[in-house]
Amino acid sequence: MRLFISREEHLRRAGLAGAEARRRGADALVLFNPTHIFYLTGFAFIATERPTALIVADDATVLFIPRLEEEHAYADAVVDRVVTYPEYPGETHPMPQLAGLLGSLGLTRARLGADGDGYPGIMGYRGPRLSEVLPDAPVSLMRDLIEEMMMVKSEEELALIRESARWGNLAHALLQEYTRSGVIESEVSHRASYDATVAMVRALGPEYRPLSWTFPGARAGYRGQVGKQSAIAHAMTTNARIHAGDVLVTGASAAAGGYYSELERTMVVSPVTDEHRRFFSLMLGAQETAFEAIRPGRPCAEVDRAVRAFFEKHDLMPYWRHHVGHAMGIGIHEAPFFDIGDATEMRPGMVFTVEPGIYVPGFAGFRHSDTLAMTESGFEMLTYYPRDLESLTIPG
Amino acid sequence: MRLFISREEHLRRAGLAGAEARRRGADALVLFNPTHIFYLTGFAFIATERPTALIVADDATVLFIPRLEEEHAYADAVVDRVVTYPEYPGETHPMPQLAGLLGSLGLTRARLGADGDGYPGIMGYRGPRLSEVLPDAPVSLMRDLIEEMMMVKSEEELALIRESARWGNLAHALLQEYTRSGVIESEVSHRASYDATVAMVRALGPEYRPLSWTFPGARAGYRGQVGKQSAIAHAMTTNARIHAGDVLVTGASAAAGGYYSELERTMVVSPVTDEHRRFFSLMLGAQETAFEAIRPGRPCAEVDRAVRAFFEKHDLMPYWRHHVGHAMGIGIHEAPFFDIGDATEMRPGMVFTVEPGIYVPGFAGFRHSDTLAMTESGFEMLTYYPRDLESLTIPG
Repeated sequence: MRLFISREEHLRRAGLAGAEARRRGADALVLFNPTHIFYLTGFAFIATERPTALIVADDATVLFIPRLEEEHAYADAVVDRVVTYPEYPGETHPMPQLAGLLGSLGLTRARLGADGDGYPGIMGYRGPRLSEVLPDAPVSLMRDLIEEMMMVKSEEELALIRESARWGNLAHALLQEYTRSGVIESEVSHRASYDATVAMVRALGPEYRPLSWTFPGARAGYRGQVGKQSAIAHAMTTNARIHAGDVLVTGASAAAGGYYSELERTMVVSPVTDEHRRFFSLMLGAQETAFEAIRPGRPCAEVDRAVRAFFEKHDLMPYWRHHVGHAMGIGIHEAPFFDIGDATEMRPGMVFTVEPGIYVPGFAGFRHSDTLAMTESGFEMLTYYPRDLESLTIPG
Repeated sequence: MRLFISREEHLRRAGLAGAEARRRGADALVLFNPTHIFYLTGFAFIATERPTALIVADDATVLFIPRLEEEHAYADAVVDRVVTYPEYPGETHPMPQLAGLLGSLGLTRARLGADGDGYPGIMGYRGPRLSEVLPDAPVSLMRDLIEEMMMVKSEEELALIRESARWGNLAHALLQEYTRSGVIESEVSHRASYDATVAMVRALGPEYRPLSWTFPGARAGYRGQVGKQSAIAHAMTTNARIHAGDVLVTGASAAAGGYYSELERTMVVSPVTDEHRRFFSLMLGAQETAFEAIRPGRPCAEVDRAVRAFFEKHDLMPYWRHHVGHAMGIGIHEAPFFDIGDATEMRPGMVFTVEPGIYVPGFAGFRHSDTLAMTESGFEMLTYYPRDLESLTIPG
């Protein structure tokens, strides 16, 4: 069982990125975004104030990193060469050193494609632009080049997202099992995440690589959407105590080879009222409406348009807060979006969340999120946790 | 007990930021960086593809956010006004709507200071620059304005970082207690984090707000620096099993009102060899050397220079991988850095990590990290976990 992207796929990706950059008129590509570097090389690292860059030239891929990461990159990065600088800011700033490296590759006067004109301001980084340190090399921004490649997932990527969904599902099942009136949200969130991660690590064995710095393993929890606060779509945890009659909105996922899925459910702690039933059912209706509108070849906007029409038909617009969903994979949100303003065509291999929400201020919020992969003829559901109210009712 | 920054302090910060922007020649300040917005307003939110901006004008602070965040911002953000746009990308992109808002504030032809020329490319966001949507308003980049304010912590901020250190210490104590030969690193990491978070939440009660999306609570763990892999300074978790004779490098922290501390220790699983003792003792010596060089009024570079001299004196340069430390607070790394290239003067109120590391490929890595706050006459240690090898030896 392989739980990470193969060397062959990384080589294929770098080849495609270089070819696309050339097609767009660049002699070489310089990537600064850590996600883009991970996508092309498999090198998962903690992005800090120390800049990193990947050069994709005709005949070689060269990774430019701080000395700190040298052994790590030699072990994990699928690249032809690794070049290091001592430290940031250091006696000589890393950016002129990158310019020197590009010069040694014969690129001082080359037409460069780049995903940004320098390293972004991560963790206090400051520095000159790429175009400043290489004044004779015209830099064309190609911010979307890797993003567009990332939109369509390969079979290897889909396998990792399915693996993520499996353990997110376990974490969610444990979260539901541990939740009852009287507990504090963060306690059951941590307990479910811990137990699911232990199971995941033991089941998958040493081949399992989360390749995630921020949550290596599985997790499920509440993040603050408890009781009346469930009406705040992006609430932050306040460690609320769960009470009878509360609506709870969950989130669950797992990291698998650097890829994620997204599972969210609305649960109700007994007693369930008619008002709960009404909004829960409307939320399910909105999600079904989205599923019906999802078809390869159509623009993403149509999914949002169909759901907005559902909201209008049922007088729900006062409770509307956000678009229907987003792509995901390495990023927990990626472009494109199920949004009225996104004309991107749905294509086989794209992975989306579907999560229209109904938020009633002072009462509760209602949102399920499922992850699906587009196929030639429709889509495959990747998350599979029960969606009906009866299954999602917590005994009081 | 208040476990978050007061309204008064947020008002003071916004006033100072506006005054500094005016001093630099701007009529108003536009901030896009989510950390900067949190710093000035106390509004902790999940930064997504949906752009956010804070306008600091002469007579008012105005927060520009997606509809999704409206109720959340009204509850939590210390600002004069909240203005929302429906969604991103939406039928009209949010950036022209921000231009319209700036126009309604009489700023169409104003001199604008900004921390970036538009919203950064978070989670698939794309959009025009601020200078493109407001062509008659000259935009001056003032990336460092808020960063420089953030460098010197107030008493309120120091209190939160001390609170963080307290619970990071508990998490670390539990991690050490649970660690023994035979366990898998992620299991004990999760277990210690869970137990420490439960204790923290119960001890602090409902006033406790982590204001952190990615780790709300306390945590301690290994992140991959186990056995030979401890020589990889920024390893990623591989769920290694811990064995007798392994060197382990830990990390512990807690979120308190959006602030963090950093505690890291090198532990050894028995039996401890002479080689362990030698490098452990050199690592302690390097950290002591740093402590001795830390004095208000001196440049940060001198701390790194002193530690590099220690490395050279003891023939340790083959095992040198990174600078001595970094500032922190809201960010887990912030500028300035204890780096040979950073001339910033150490000033009272600055908070730094001190963490010189020795990394012996194929054998082990050795690094403690402590967090301290600069005072008028020296510094105050904020972390206080035992540092000696005897205290940090795990029974085999």
